[in-house]
Amino acid sequence: MKTSPPPPPARDDEPIVPAPQMAAWRAFLTAHARLTDELARELRDRVGLPLTWYDVLVQLSEADEHRLRMQDLAGRVLLSKSGLTRLIDRMERDGLVARSPCQDDRRGTWAQMTDRGYDVIRSSAPTHLAGVREHFADLLGDHEAAVVAEALGRVVERLEA
Amino acid sequence: MKTSPPPPPARDDEPIVPAPQMAAWRAFLTAHARLTDELARELRDRVGLPLTWYDVLVQLSEADEHRLRMQDLAGRVLLSKSGLTRLIDRMERDGLVARSPCQDDRRGTWAQMTDRGYDVIRSSAPTHLAGVREHFADLLGDHEAAVVAEALGRVVERLEA
Repeated sequence: MKTSPPPPPARDDEPIVPAPQMAAWRAFLTAHARLTDELARELRDRVGLPLTWYDVLVQLSEADEHRLRMQDLAGRVLLSKSGLTRLIDRMERDGLVARSPCQDDRRGTWAQMTDRGYDVIRSSAPTHLAGVREHFADLLGDHEAAVVAEALGRVVERLEA
Repeated sequence: MKTSPPPPPARDDEPIVPAPQMAAWRAFLTAHARLTDELARELRDRVGLPLTWYDVLVQLSEADEHRLRMQDLAGRVLLSKSGLTRLIDRMERDGLVARSPCQDDRRGTWAQMTDRGYDVIRSSAPTHLAGVREHFADLLGDHEAAVVAEALGRVVERLEA
């Protein structure tokens, strides 16, 4: 093929995203992809932990009694809810999480952080937080951080409403 | 287990992320998770296309002659580079992408958007863009959008340097 089709022309019925918001959207998506790549690489290389495992351990560490029902955990993880069951299988084999049936909900299952899971998040947090600081926090002034938190917080609020 | 271990205490050697930047970081991660969930749901329900496929088609549609070397495509997709080879396999079976060997690079392979791929991105873009507008762009004022674009653009620039 020597020539390529032209880019899609704008259609009258096509929703237009205004330029400043489109620039924000593209920066948002690209920043997320690059940041999670870099933070995952650092965590893997320095402490041998996948970032998706770290995400699960953070959610459990912030939960009451360090445990969550599987369906609640799926609603809280931020990186990948596809394949969560298999991910918890692997974390259970590694002794970071233990599963147990919910007493008051026959179909429910708890995912409980083990002492070993606690040790792992405890020892890997400094690496992760150093990356968050270096690649994100240190680059945002306080005003910028406040604007980002408020604007993206509003996006979250609307989607969760 | 009746009691749970206390949350990890801050250690002296632990990097501290200041509160405004930590709030921005959490809003950033949560907004990305919720937005991609919602946009993926809408695209799947309304046009039957996975958001990861849409991402690939967007990258190809913006490339010269609507094609990219597989390794360059892996560097550009924003949603999931794990399993990209299998994803392109499936898109090839559906006729949205065609693979061909690179003439000037024996080990390289092109991923080329087909006419059908072009039709699919053309017809699904309005749904996707309507979602971006509704769930993101309409909630950000112009000043906020500019701050988000500049701050997150700086994050990208540093990581790509």
